[in-house]
Amino acid sequence: MEGSAQRRAAVCAYAAMRAGAALEPYAYASPELGAMDVDIEISHSGICHSDLHLIDNDWGVSSYPLVPGHEIVGTVSRVGTAVAELREGQRVGVGWLAGACLECAQCRRGEENLCRQAQPTCVGREGGYATRIRVDSRFAVVIPDSLSSAAAAPLLCAGITVFAPLRRAALKTEAFLGVIGIGGLGHLAIQYGKAMGCRVIAFSGSAAKAAEAQRFGAERFVVTSKRGALDAEAGSCDFLLSTVPADLPWTAYLNLLKPNGSLCIVGASPGEFKVPVVALIDGQKNVGGSAVGSNAEMRAMLKFSAEHNIAPMVELFEMKDVNRALDRLRGNHLRYRAVLTNRI
Amino acid sequence: MEGSAQRRAAVCAYAAMRAGAALEPYAYASPELGAMDVDIEISHSGICHSDLHLIDNDWGVSSYPLVPGHEIVGTVSRVGTAVAELREGQRVGVGWLAGACLECAQCRRGEENLCRQAQPTCVGREGGYATRIRVDSRFAVVIPDSLSSAAAAPLLCAGITVFAPLRRAALKTEAFLGVIGIGGLGHLAIQYGKAMGCRVIAFSGSAAKAAEAQRFGAERFVVTSKRGALDAEAGSCDFLLSTVPADLPWTAYLNLLKPNGSLCIVGASPGEFKVPVVALIDGQKNVGGSAVGSNAEMRAMLKFSAEHNIAPMVELFEMKDVNRALDRLRGNHLRYRAVLTNRI
Repeated sequence: MEGSAQRRAAVCAYAAMRAGAALEPYAYASPELGAMDVDIEISHSGICHSDLHLIDNDWGVSSYPLVPGHEIVGTVSRVGTAVAELREGQRVGVGWLAGACLECAQCRRGEENLCRQAQPTCVGREGGYATRIRVDSRFAVVIPDSLSSAAAAPLLCAGITVFAPLRRAALKTEAFLGVIGIGGLGHLAIQYGKAMGCRVIAFSGSAAKAAEAQRFGAERFVVTSKRGALDAEAGSCDFLLSTVPADLPWTAYLNLLKPNGSLCIVGASPGEFKVPVVALIDGQKNVGGSAVGSNAEMRAMLKFSAEHNIAPMVELFEMKDVNRALDRLRGNHLRYRAVLTNRI
Repeated sequence: MEGSAQRRAAVCAYAAMRAGAALEPYAYASPELGAMDVDIEISHSGICHSDLHLIDNDWGVSSYPLVPGHEIVGTVSRVGTAVAELREGQRVGVGWLAGACLECAQCRRGEENLCRQAQPTCVGREGGYATRIRVDSRFAVVIPDSLSSAAAAPLLCAGITVFAPLRRAALKTEAFLGVIGIGGLGHLAIQYGKAMGCRVIAFSGSAAKAAEAQRFGAERFVVTSKRGALDAEAGSCDFLLSTVPADLPWTAYLNLLKPNGSLCIVGASPGEFKVPVVALIDGQKNVGGSAVGSNAEMRAMLKFSAEHNIAPMVELFEMKDVNRALDRLRGNHLRYRAVLTNRI
């Protein structure tokens, strides 16, 4: 594994060397290019809240050096011998999933995101805060021309995470969609919901986001920290999407639903979902989780985003300023998603 | 309201005179027959676990004297002036619902069971442990000829409660259905699931029910009290129906589901549903409640039951032996549903 070819292949990345540490420059050598693999020269890499959890080892799955990043846009620079679907020079994206077994019941149904052997892009392998990434070509998706790379990057995790459950819910026109938490995910969920024909109610602890939420497409904005605010909205929503990665007063939120309404949780709170059993039975309420999306949903999401001009509001940082971007995320200051770029 | 007509109209019933009391003979006079009402001479009246909760005022909604009973079969003896759908002499049934507003969004969609003004048959009015009942004719359903009255009675609450969510779930042929709790509801759920083409796994704390569960149609029987029994079934079910009106180790049950699987709770536990949020997100699990069924679902359930020869296993009691029947239910001795009759 020595020699000039190997040295040319070195990837320059940013890595946490231990749990919670600031990122440092870090170089690593890619393994051999597999027959179905592609190399992608990364132009943009979004920062997701999950990257913080991985840096901090909140989920106990991190190993160090840890290169975060799973909202990756770049250009195909090399293709494996068996790759038929992609070619050099194409602009592609990679999200949370970098691989799956492609043989299990879930994979055969086109639900690779539910494969038990699903390979996350930056867990147990190096992610997208880097100059290049090597992935299974079946997990790289072509970016529609009308989407800018800076806008496309956050769609690959934040976007798909909220788009997939909304699409599966197949809400009726004029259905009332409540979006809980107006951040990286929530500000996209408002846009998708609006474009799908829903009437969107935004629920946020921060009154300062009201005007922006309405610009994204919310017809009402509820400040959840205001006393009695949730009670006043009882029975208002057909579908609720919770993007908040924290404990919520779940019974009060379930109470926002109409009969037969559904709450979908995509914010990976470390806590519990806890409601009285009768709060589920009365009015036949449903609660479910959703985990990113499948490859087919990823393509549908990008197509839908392009057709409806849906884009995240981003703050762009040079890759070398990754720690400054992470600090803004930690401080809850981002409006609404940070994207790192190698292009400036 | 005096005179011979009124005396003829007196209903002989059994009532709890205070919370938790044994039932006593009790006579009451029906109010005037409304234009859409029918009188039904009761031949059979099933005993549901909810009747015990009402007798004991477990839900805080009981008033006394309390006449329980909401699994009622009998013959129409009198019809109001505007009743077009029913006529004297027809055999009909009445379940949990005796009325609804018929004007709200839920009623207009044919989901009367979700109407906020839904009128339960034996809450705030006299129920079916009696010789006669007067109800809105739109909440009396004709019983198919091939169903015996003793078999039909428990279908009107126990049957609809498990049939409706299974029908809505539209499970695929050969889907794995787990039925939790093999009692009045569970033993019917096994039969419906089997008739819908599912492969049914029965989960029960009582090993003694194994042979019967298999006769009802379960292909496997899991004794939940056995150490490690639930873990051994991880990922085995597409759909789980919980009929147990008690707290369960919900995380262990959620773990029985395949990815995208759903748990439906119909057993009205007084406790909480509590799982880690990530247990919902990983594998995209769903949890929901279901509350009896609509009028349309009631008709579909009776038709399906008749077509597939589905019937509860019942213990028949004379109406005057109601307290003996209730004692067997309290002691968890019933196999699997008690039915009172005025016919012996």
